[in-house]
Amino acid sequence: MVDIATRVHNHKWKIDPIVRSLIDTDFYKLLMCQSVFRKRRDTTVTFSLINRSNAIRLADLVDEGELREQLDHIRSLSLSRGESTWMRGNMFYGKRSMFTSEFMDWFETLRLPPYHLEKRDGQYELTFEGKWPEVMLWEIPALAVLMELRSRSVLHHLKKFELQVLYARAMTKLWEKVEHLRPIEGLRIADFGTRRRHSFLWQDWCVQAMSERLGNRFVGTSNCLIAKNRDLEAIGTNAHELPMVYAALAEDDAGLARAPYEVLSDWHEEHDGNLRIILPDTYGTRGFLDNAPDWLAGWTGIRIDSGAPEEGAETAIKWWTSRGEDPRQKMVIFSDGLDVERIIALHQRFSGRVRCSFGWGTLLTNDFRGLTPDDALAPFSLVCKAVAANGRPTVKLSDNPRKAMGPDQEIARYRRVFGVGAQEEFDVVV
Amino acid sequence: MVDIATRVHNHKWKIDPIVRSLIDTDFYKLLMCQSVFRKRRDTTVTFSLINRSNAIRLADLVDEGELREQLDHIRSLSLSRGESTWMRGNMFYGKRSMFTSEFMDWFETLRLPPYHLEKRDGQYELTFEGKWPEVMLWEIPALAVLMELRSRSVLHHLKKFELQVLYARAMTKLWEKVEHLRPIEGLRIADFGTRRRHSFLWQDWCVQAMSERLGNRFVGTSNCLIAKNRDLEAIGTNAHELPMVYAALAEDDAGLARAPYEVLSDWHEEHDGNLRIILPDTYGTRGFLDNAPDWLAGWTGIRIDSGAPEEGAETAIKWWTSRGEDPRQKMVIFSDGLDVERIIALHQRFSGRVRCSFGWGTLLTNDFRGLTPDDALAPFSLVCKAVAANGRPTVKLSDNPRKAMGPDQEIARYRRVFGVGAQEEFDVVV
Repeated sequence: MVDIATRVHNHKWKIDPIVRSLIDTDFYKLLMCQSVFRKRRDTTVTFSLINRSNAIRLADLVDEGELREQLDHIRSLSLSRGESTWMRGNMFYGKRSMFTSEFMDWFETLRLPPYHLEKRDGQYELTFEGKWPEVMLWEIPALAVLMELRSRSVLHHLKKFELQVLYARAMTKLWEKVEHLRPIEGLRIADFGTRRRHSFLWQDWCVQAMSERLGNRFVGTSNCLIAKNRDLEAIGTNAHELPMVYAALAEDDAGLARAPYEVLSDWHEEHDGNLRIILPDTYGTRGFLDNAPDWLAGWTGIRIDSGAPEEGAETAIKWWTSRGEDPRQKMVIFSDGLDVERIIALHQRFSGRVRCSFGWGTLLTNDFRGLTPDDALAPFSLVCKAVAANGRPTVKLSDNPRKAMGPDQEIARYRRVFGVGAQEEFDVVV
Repeated sequence: MVDIATRVHNHKWKIDPIVRSLIDTDFYKLLMCQSVFRKRRDTTVTFSLINRSNAIRLADLVDEGELREQLDHIRSLSLSRGESTWMRGNMFYGKRSMFTSEFMDWFETLRLPPYHLEKRDGQYELTFEGKWPEVMLWEIPALAVLMELRSRSVLHHLKKFELQVLYARAMTKLWEKVEHLRPIEGLRIADFGTRRRHSFLWQDWCVQAMSERLGNRFVGTSNCLIAKNRDLEAIGTNAHELPMVYAALAEDDAGLARAPYEVLSDWHEEHDGNLRIILPDTYGTRGFLDNAPDWLAGWTGIRIDSGAPEEGAETAIKWWTSRGEDPRQKMVIFSDGLDVERIIALHQRFSGRVRCSFGWGTLLTNDFRGLTPDDALAPFSLVCKAVAANGRPTVKLSDNPRKAMGPDQEIARYRRVFGVGAQEEFDVVV
């Protein structure tokens, strides 16, 4: 029996929206948004799309009209009653009322601010400017829309059976990855793949597959909508945008040097337990840890998001030891460019020495490599970053100079202030 | 949206029937049935299930109650109006009115006769006895039911995602086979996989995949229901049961020696063109061809269903040449134990020398090898054969002694009458 009502309902769609909910975003965005709303709500920021993979000419692949339709649709979204109830009443990281009434009252009325879109040299220049707590919420849906429109443009040419086989292959591929992870004792792994997912439905499938096969080794998803719909833990803490914006707002070099710690000091006021996770690499991990105040060594863990992950984790272990902390009680969350082999290798090396955890992103939710001719669905490195705050440029150094961003002069200044010396370069695949 | 009507409708099923139509059977069964109905309708025959793979203990795997329900359901089926219209009006092998009004009038009122079922030594003894045109129609649905109940018994233990991944893998596997076949110039291949299919839905998918990807290199399916629903050619000619029953009815050795030719003489009256396909191996291909009347050399082709297929085809080519026929005008249909490598090798060797054609069976519609633990879904060799006619045992020799059947004494007599010497043995996988 054909479900005629569904078919007719589908006919009514002007478009097939990619992002259908304001909470189809990463949990840490909401946590950070609340922080920013409390402490820095009047900061004006600019977020901008950056395609690190120049060979992917997005503006040739994705129709501008369709992109505008999708972005306009996101601007029409507001928090639904059920979503609000979930945010207000659900237990996150073991705690109820994670989001305050003041924040929720504001969030319930929020619509995302305008965007600015231009084509240049086969790429889209997509920027968002406005109040930080509003603009920051564009990052994840903007990326998800571009990633999925790119998928659709490739899939558009496939016939029904080719599509069915493509997804059959992708499912098989993912399932084999999960099967490799399943025997690992004490594994803790989460989905961090919203921003660069192949599509919403595919991310949803990947999360269900992980959940079904890994049981409690799968600790949750960063995607709030999927966490809500599938009764899973919403996972995430904080990201580079906090130190980047705090740093850009610093009045002088001394303020700049303090900025990354101010971020965590603010966070310290708000959060405890497993939400106290240091992201140390914005301006170089080593210098950050060397100069860190002692209270930071008491935090629960660290997230390794650039550079050689083994080195990052060893650095953290040495640092904790030097501060009199027991690394075995600390959590190390790996979240950079993970795939199964790396997860297994890192787990083997660090399990028992620290509490290992993995945030698996692009190669969980968008590994269609080898499944289409010319590898037209291979993932690529698209980001959407805060590039300015109150008119000043932001800078990111990271532990991999290829991930650095900002004006050259400012990069040089930051390297000096944070004492960053020569850095090893790593390929940025995703 | 959930299709509630479908869900509620499904709740009403007492069982989930495997065979839902009398034409969910092989086309050649209907052709042969009409022949038998015309010439030998009063012959009493016994068909019996034979599991050549003793290691598969079917009676342990398949519940007797469920098997009875499925068989009883088949007995409740009668030809629908649309099915009758299709059989009466559709063009088969380029010809309209393939089925006569007399035959159709009879077929429209037909219900399948009773079955007899017993368990012995972990196997089912399933026999059908009665008038030949009725009993013969049990063969295909009985096999399909047993194959699918066995699949279901294995699948019963899998969770939703394991099922999804199983079928994803099976689809991937089949698609890769089809991709290997696609570049072969002049390929002609049909689905012959009804009897040992994994399930009806899976056969239907396989046929659609072949049709979509191979275009006109896919010439059709033996399954009438799928041919009707998918607007494909129904493919098939005749099978061993005709010479086996004719031979069993022979009064003496001279009659026995004539029997296989009488079958084809009757067929010659009824059919022409691509339906004139010799199946020479029932009592040994070599002797059959050596002693064949000249008019048989004028037939369109030959089907190779046992023994070494290369040898069978070379024998046929030599025979045609010796009878003054041009082998390049003749069709050779390979239908025994085919998989991609063999199809490609046979095509390479014989394409251009004859008109090559392939009837791909079990390893098209039931290749789940390697996809479940313990290979619990691997195909096996189940047949349902005419074992007696008017109280006399039937005999099959074939070009592979492992496929021989019948009482030892009778096998010896047939070997003598048909001059069958030493034969090479081949594994019977499917």
